[in-house]
Amino acid sequence: MRKITEIIKRIRPIDPRILKETQRRLDSLTKPKGSLGRLEELAKTVVAITGRENPILDRKVIFTTVGDHGVARQGVSAFPQEVTLQMVYNFLQGGAAINVLARGVGVKVLVIDMGVAHEIKCSSGLINKKVAFGTQDMTKGSAMSRKQAFQSIGGGIEIFEKEVATSGVDIAGTGDMGIANTTSSSAIVACITGCGVQDVTGRGTGIDDERLKRKIEVIEKALKINQPDPHDPLDILSKVGGFEIGGLVGCILAAAAHRVPIVIDGFISAASALIAYELCPPLKDYLIAAHRSQEKGHQIALNHLGKIPLLDLNMRLGEGTGVVLGMKLVELGVKILNEMATFEEARVSREEANPLQGN
Amino acid sequence: MRKITEIIKRIRPIDPRILKETQRRLDSLTKPKGSLGRLEELAKTVVAITGRENPILDRKVIFTTVGDHGVARQGVSAFPQEVTLQMVYNFLQGGAAINVLARGVGVKVLVIDMGVAHEIKCSSGLINKKVAFGTQDMTKGSAMSRKQAFQSIGGGIEIFEKEVATSGVDIAGTGDMGIANTTSSSAIVACITGCGVQDVTGRGTGIDDERLKRKIEVIEKALKINQPDPHDPLDILSKVGGFEIGGLVGCILAAAAHRVPIVIDGFISAASALIAYELCPPLKDYLIAAHRSQEKGHQIALNHLGKIPLLDLNMRLGEGTGVVLGMKLVELGVKILNEMATFEEARVSREEANPLQGN
Repeated sequence: MRKITEIIKRIRPIDPRILKETQRRLDSLTKPKGSLGRLEELAKTVVAITGRENPILDRKVIFTTVGDHGVARQGVSAFPQEVTLQMVYNFLQGGAAINVLARGVGVKVLVIDMGVAHEIKCSSGLINKKVAFGTQDMTKGSAMSRKQAFQSIGGGIEIFEKEVATSGVDIAGTGDMGIANTTSSSAIVACITGCGVQDVTGRGTGIDDERLKRKIEVIEKALKINQPDPHDPLDILSKVGGFEIGGLVGCILAAAAHRVPIVIDGFISAASALIAYELCPPLKDYLIAAHRSQEKGHQIALNHLGKIPLLDLNMRLGEGTGVVLGMKLVELGVKILNEMATFEEARVSREEANPLQGN
Repeated sequence: MRKITEIIKRIRPIDPRILKETQRRLDSLTKPKGSLGRLEELAKTVVAITGRENPILDRKVIFTTVGDHGVARQGVSAFPQEVTLQMVYNFLQGGAAINVLARGVGVKVLVIDMGVAHEIKCSSGLINKKVAFGTQDMTKGSAMSRKQAFQSIGGGIEIFEKEVATSGVDIAGTGDMGIANTTSSSAIVACITGCGVQDVTGRGTGIDDERLKRKIEVIEKALKINQPDPHDPLDILSKVGGFEIGGLVGCILAAAAHRVPIVIDGFISAASALIAYELCPPLKDYLIAAHRSQEKGHQIALNHLGKIPLLDLNMRLGEGTGVVLGMKLVELGVKILNEMATFEEARVSREEANPLQGN
C-alpha cells in the first residue's frame, strides 16, 4: 500500500500554460492555424506531460498484462480458459496481433504474467509477477483479497519502474489478455459509472445472444453477492477485478508519476484506467485514448474519463493492438512540432487580413 | 487523349471472391473472428487490388501535385497566391508537414509542378509537368482549355508510370498544394454530386464568414458563366478545375490500371477522385479514403464515392498529410495477414460451440 500511496503523491495535473505556449509554437509553423487538428493536440499534450519542449518518443513500450478469471467457469466467453496460457506462448513467439503491429511501428511489448491459471514452462521473455493461479469465481465471493489487489497494482508499478530504470520509457501503453476479462471489466465499469450492467456488457470475443444474456446475469450476480463500494476503487478491484487489471492500474499510476504519456487500449484498459483515475483524478491528464473499441461499454468508460479516442476502426481484440496505432499518431504529432519549418525559416507569407474589410 | 483512353481500358473491378478467400485466411489467425475490424478490411482490399496473396507495401509513394488558380485573384483564400511557390521550396527543403510525416512513416514524396504561376528557380528534386503559369480566372471563362485538361491528366499518368518503371510503387497516395484550390474543388464537387454550392464550400485555409460568403458567390458565378456539363468530367475539369487536380486524376487512373492501391487525402484529392471515378467507375475499388477532412464538402464527396474514411482527426491541410497516416494503417493491416500465426501454428484452441446449447 505504501508504494501506491507514494506513487499517487507524485502525480500532478499538467500546467495549462504549457498547452497554450505550445499552441503558439505550432501556429508559427508553415500551415494554416490548427489545420493538423488532433495531431497538434497530441503534440501539446505530450509537451505538457513530459515538461520537455521537444520530446523524443523513441522508447515506446506496451505493458501487456495477462491473468485468468475464476468466473470463466460460468461460460461467459467464446473461448476456453486455456487460451490465456496458449496466447502467452504465442506472444513470446511473436505470432500474435500485438507482436505484428508492434514490430511494424517499432514498439517494445512486455508480457507480464500477473495471474495465469497455469505454471508457465518456457518463460524466456516473460515477466513473472504472478499473484495467484487465476482469480476466484466472483459469482461466489471476492475475486481476490484486498492484499492481492494491492499486490497486483504494486507489481504493475514495479515493472514500470524497472523498465524506466533499465531501458527508459518515453511513451507507454496498456494491453491485456485473459479469458473472461470483459466480464470483470463490465462489472468494474458498471460500479464506477453507475450504469446498468446491460449497458456496459458486450460480446467480448464474439458470444451469441444467449451467452450474452448469461454473461449479464453472471455480472449482476457477482455485484449482488459482493456489493463493491463504488467509492472505493480498491474494493471494486478486489471484489470483481482481475490480476491483469490491477497490473495495468499500477502501470498507469507509475507512468503518470514519471511524467510519461500513457496510451490506453480498449475496454479492459479503460476499466483499469477508471480504477486508477478514481484513485488519483489528476492522472487523467496523462491518459491518451487510442481507439474506440466495439465492446459496448467502452464508450461509457471513455465518457467517464472525458476522453475522445483517436481511432475508430471497429477493433475489439485487446492485447494493446489499438495502442500501437495510437502511439504512432502521438509520435507523428510530436514530430510535427519538432521538425516542421516556421514561416520565418521557410520564408512563407502568413495569412493576410481580409482585404474585403479594408484592413 | 489516347493515353487516357488506354489507361482506362486497363482498369478492371476487383474480384469479390478474393475478398472472401482472404477473409477465410484472416479467420485462421490467432484472434477472435473479425476482431481487427477495418485492419482486416484493408488487408483484404489490398490482396484483391494487387492480386498478390501476401502483398509487401515497402515502396510507399505520395504524389503531391502543385498548381495555381486564376480565381485566387477574387480573394477567396486567407493566404496570398505566392504561398504556392513558397510552399514548393518548403517541400523541396523538407520543412513542410508532409515532409515531416512522410519521414516518420517511410513514405517517398514526389513534388510535381503542374502549373505554379511562377518560374521555379532552384528546382532540384522537383518534377516539372507545368501545363501553364496557373489557370485562368474561372469567374471570367474556362479555367483551362480542354487540351490543357488532357495534358494535366496525361502528366499525372506519365509521372506515375515513370515512378513504377524506375523505382516501383507498392501503394500510392495523393496530395496537393495550390492557393484557392478548395474553391475549384467545391465547384467540381457541386457539379458532380449535384449538391448546392453552399453545402460543399468550406473555410479552406481558415477564412472568416464574410470571405466564405464571397467564396460561395465566386463559385456560383463560375458555374453560371461556364455551365460545365455534369456528365462530362473533362468539361468540368477544364472549366472549373486546376492543373494539380488534373495531375491527380492521372495518378489515380494510372494507379488503378497498374493494380496499385491509392490512398486519397482530403477535399482536393476527393474532387480529383470524383473526376477519375466519373471517367471510369470501376476504379472506385482501388481507392482508400485516408481521413475525413474538416473541409465542409469532403464528406459529401466521400459519400458519392461510397467510401468511409479511416481517420477523423479534424485535419484540413492537404499536401497528402492525411494519406501518410492512412498508409500506415494499410501497411499494418497487410502485415497482420502476412505475419500473424494461425491457430494451428500457435496451438491455440479455437472458439467453442456454446455449451449452453449443448452442442
